[in-house]
Amino acid sequence: MITGKNYIGNSWSNRGTKTYKTFNPLLNIENEPIFYEATQQEIDEAVSLATDAFKIFKKTSGEQRAKFLNQIADEILALDDQLIQTYCSETGLPEGRAKGERGRTIGQLRSFAELVKEGSWVEASIDTALPDRKPIPKPDIRKMLVPLGPIVVFGASNFPLAYSTAGGDTAAAFAAGCPVIVKSHPMHAGTGELVSSAIVKAAEATGMPNGVFSNLNSSGIEVGKQLVEHPRVKGVGFTGSIRGGRALYDMAAKRNEPIPVFAEMGSINPVVIFPKALENRGDELAKTYAGSITLGSGQFCTNPGLLLGFKGGRLNTFISSLANEIIGIEPSCMLHPNIIGAYENNKQKALSQDGLEAIVDLETKVSPNFARQAITTVDGDTFLKNPTLHQEVFGPFSMVVQCDNVEQLELIISKLEGQLTGTVIAEDDETDRYSRVIEALQNRVGRIIFNGVPTGVEVCPSMVHGGPYPASTDSRFTAVGINSIKRWVRPFSFQSWPDHLLPKELKNDNPLGISRLVNNKLTKEKI
Amino acid sequence: MITGKNYIGNSWSNRGTKTYKTFNPLLNIENEPIFYEATQQEIDEAVSLATDAFKIFKKTSGEQRAKFLNQIADEILALDDQLIQTYCSETGLPEGRAKGERGRTIGQLRSFAELVKEGSWVEASIDTALPDRKPIPKPDIRKMLVPLGPIVVFGASNFPLAYSTAGGDTAAAFAAGCPVIVKSHPMHAGTGELVSSAIVKAAEATGMPNGVFSNLNSSGIEVGKQLVEHPRVKGVGFTGSIRGGRALYDMAAKRNEPIPVFAEMGSINPVVIFPKALENRGDELAKTYAGSITLGSGQFCTNPGLLLGFKGGRLNTFISSLANEIIGIEPSCMLHPNIIGAYENNKQKALSQDGLEAIVDLETKVSPNFARQAITTVDGDTFLKNPTLHQEVFGPFSMVVQCDNVEQLELIISKLEGQLTGTVIAEDDETDRYSRVIEALQNRVGRIIFNGVPTGVEVCPSMVHGGPYPASTDSRFTAVGINSIKRWVRPFSFQSWPDHLLPKELKNDNPLGISRLVNNKLTKEKI
Repeated sequence: MITGKNYIGNSWSNRGTKTYKTFNPLLNIENEPIFYEATQQEIDEAVSLATDAFKIFKKTSGEQRAKFLNQIADEILALDDQLIQTYCSETGLPEGRAKGERGRTIGQLRSFAELVKEGSWVEASIDTALPDRKPIPKPDIRKMLVPLGPIVVFGASNFPLAYSTAGGDTAAAFAAGCPVIVKSHPMHAGTGELVSSAIVKAAEATGMPNGVFSNLNSSGIEVGKQLVEHPRVKGVGFTGSIRGGRALYDMAAKRNEPIPVFAEMGSINPVVIFPKALENRGDELAKTYAGSITLGSGQFCTNPGLLLGFKGGRLNTFISSLANEIIGIEPSCMLHPNIIGAYENNKQKALSQDGLEAIVDLETKVSPNFARQAITTVDGDTFLKNPTLHQEVFGPFSMVVQCDNVEQLELIISKLEGQLTGTVIAEDDETDRYSRVIEALQNRVGRIIFNGVPTGVEVCPSMVHGGPYPASTDSRFTAVGINSIKRWVRPFSFQSWPDHLLPKELKNDNPLGISRLVNNKLTKEKI
Repeated sequence: MITGKNYIGNSWSNRGTKTYKTFNPLLNIENEPIFYEATQQEIDEAVSLATDAFKIFKKTSGEQRAKFLNQIADEILALDDQLIQTYCSETGLPEGRAKGERGRTIGQLRSFAELVKEGSWVEASIDTALPDRKPIPKPDIRKMLVPLGPIVVFGASNFPLAYSTAGGDTAAAFAAGCPVIVKSHPMHAGTGELVSSAIVKAAEATGMPNGVFSNLNSSGIEVGKQLVEHPRVKGVGFTGSIRGGRALYDMAAKRNEPIPVFAEMGSINPVVIFPKALENRGDELAKTYAGSITLGSGQFCTNPGLLLGFKGGRLNTFISSLANEIIGIEPSCMLHPNIIGAYENNKQKALSQDGLEAIVDLETKVSPNFARQAITTVDGDTFLKNPTLHQEVFGPFSMVVQCDNVEQLELIISKLEGQLTGTVIAEDDETDRYSRVIEALQNRVGRIIFNGVPTGVEVCPSMVHGGPYPASTDSRFTAVGINSIKRWVRPFSFQSWPDHLLPKELKNDNPLGISRLVNNKLTKEKI
């Protein structure tokens, strides 16, 4: 049963009077549970508990944290159908997607468990003393990564599991040794509560300190603001809109003690299609891209919102094929009336720009909250001159830009804001000729794809999900994959520290058997 | 000869009309050379050249960059006496210090050269494709670190070589593949120009693109502001005051595209002295700390400005010994009239606080710009209540806080701002009893030292020079050691990218022979 209450550490709390409900977009009705917005006092308690819990949690071993993470995964699986049904009722997404995302979430938790159980991720580094060095002796210095402190996580509307309550940000923070306070996403507060209950159960079962996790309900911006501005909060993870992410970044930057905010925000994920590839595979590309643009109703941050090609008959044919393919795909339900409202507004704003042609099916009758796909096209010059056209339209929408020549294409790419991904569609013998374009694209993105689609973010160590602003607020980190743990840790040095007081990772006899840089050589040997 | 001109790439430029001179604090006179402040146009040209140079520089091999870095080191050494004399004339520091710092600078350049020549620092990671994976195939994904773009470096007044023109920030940025624009420190503009000439010579000799380096003179804040706000600048390195570093951080955070600012700022470097150690080694500690506090006229960011002990006879004896030792040390010359002016002001401000006792020699006659050392003492309660006492007094100054008990000591530490270092002076059998104090200290610092002094920052892979704000603006990075390269790079993924187009670091046959994470296993093997 969903209670609608906050979790302040392991305890329920609903001291507030402000309430809200989630919405079933498929049925176009509100869901029943009533959620209680967290109060200032509840926020303070959660942060205070997290601060106390940090003192204990940061000292837990990798093995203990791995147990915690694996137990969370087990508890999420144990929620079974209740979780899947709640997820679907709060998102309008199909069961298959819910299960797929649950699998991804479980996979993330287990991969962080594996990482911290093995232990070498702390980048242990040891420089032994040289007492006889002249003119002054060299002291023994040892370094490893340590957790930052309590982290606040804002879940994403479009990934209620994988980038939300127990998603990548939370899993990475727990793995690092940081307590987490989740600002629950109001569109899937029920899903969030269920996942929170799994985390709390796992924390209790594996002996984690009370306060290692809290879940705060909120339908507005106030709870999030208070959390980000709280002096004891030491970092923020966010997935969502540029406006939302930037607001949090600005709040954090204005604090007396600024803290890192890793916000993964919008992206239009440019795709450059070169002539020969278009000639050889135009129809196939139209089909593939129609699928990618409409996948999950276009509600992916890697949705290809911008296709770039050279003006001419072949591109015209491609645009027609793409539009036909798109219109042939059944409209699908978006996450929430607010999301489809924003989609329709942004689409209309784009469509009303001068010089833009649109291919939209206006005839098919669609159910409430179902999105009509749209393909638009514009020439390179118009695109260059109008920054409104560079903005993301979150939903099943894409724009084909018809460039005059390679110089214009390169210029357009160099003028784009930072992007999560860029894609190159080319025949092998085209890459040399267009190397400057490809290089310009590399400079604007976090991940570059050859002859594929940007949707589908593989969870693996080599994945970068992030990129130059505004793809993320700090391109030096990724939001996906085990390296995302680096967002929540800092290096720490011990100088001339007695061996018995050192953490295991840095002791002479390397009791954890981890890889360490010893006097500049990577080894698992003892000292 | 010192020309006083700016380097815009490899060319001299002095189009401005605003000029200034440096100052010899030892002789208490201005130095002769006239420096021309960079104009808006010169700033734009430097950034524009850097942006163009980046396209070429980022593609240079680790070996090429190593040659460049080593050549810079050689050219700095070739400046020989002229550099040492100029350094001394602009700082009042002795020749031995100048030579020592030059050695450190050379060592840093060569260690980055070694790092990039070997090449494994890029954290290459490869996840090979699984075309048969169900439900969807896994693509080939490969990741490595790539440079951010043009970096602006602000030199430190107190390290004209090691943390300035060709100091750690610049060396790290070059190693990463980022062009550097130095905002020259006005107090040692001549030293800066000489070192710049060495960098330009090295860039020309090793075929680096024009614009890989520029040096802009400036005596005020305008040039720095314009650089940090320039849309094509992608990162900032700074060493200096909290006020200065925070101002740059704020400017960068307010940009349309915020950029990372790594500012290494002030610190009072708390030292906790436990009773038995005080009993057994009080006199020796007084002598050692008198040396550490007055080293380089106290002009080190790791200067121990706060000593914490338990109230009582032994601490009183220690304070007397420390004061006697300090007074016995000859006053020494500070860097500049502005620095000694600030020292005297801040010292007076501290001395005028209620409840503070001071032991200062007011009788010895000192030359202009020479600093009188000061030891002050205050009780724990007074210290806790007065945040003014927590502020750094940059110079040969330290404060002993007499704590009532261990709870108060822990409370004081937990209330301190972030610090570069913390030091524990203890006998081995005291560490258990005071473990909570030691842990609280760890939470506030970037480096913790056992039975030593915080001054002396070893350049080695295990060093962390940084820490929670305001020790630095981002505790997740270090300003010293090879890992400081991480400030100027971002991870980048290639998906399904053709082998012949991949950078060498990620090609199947591993032509550079570097360590790579291949399918989650660290190896130098080919694929």
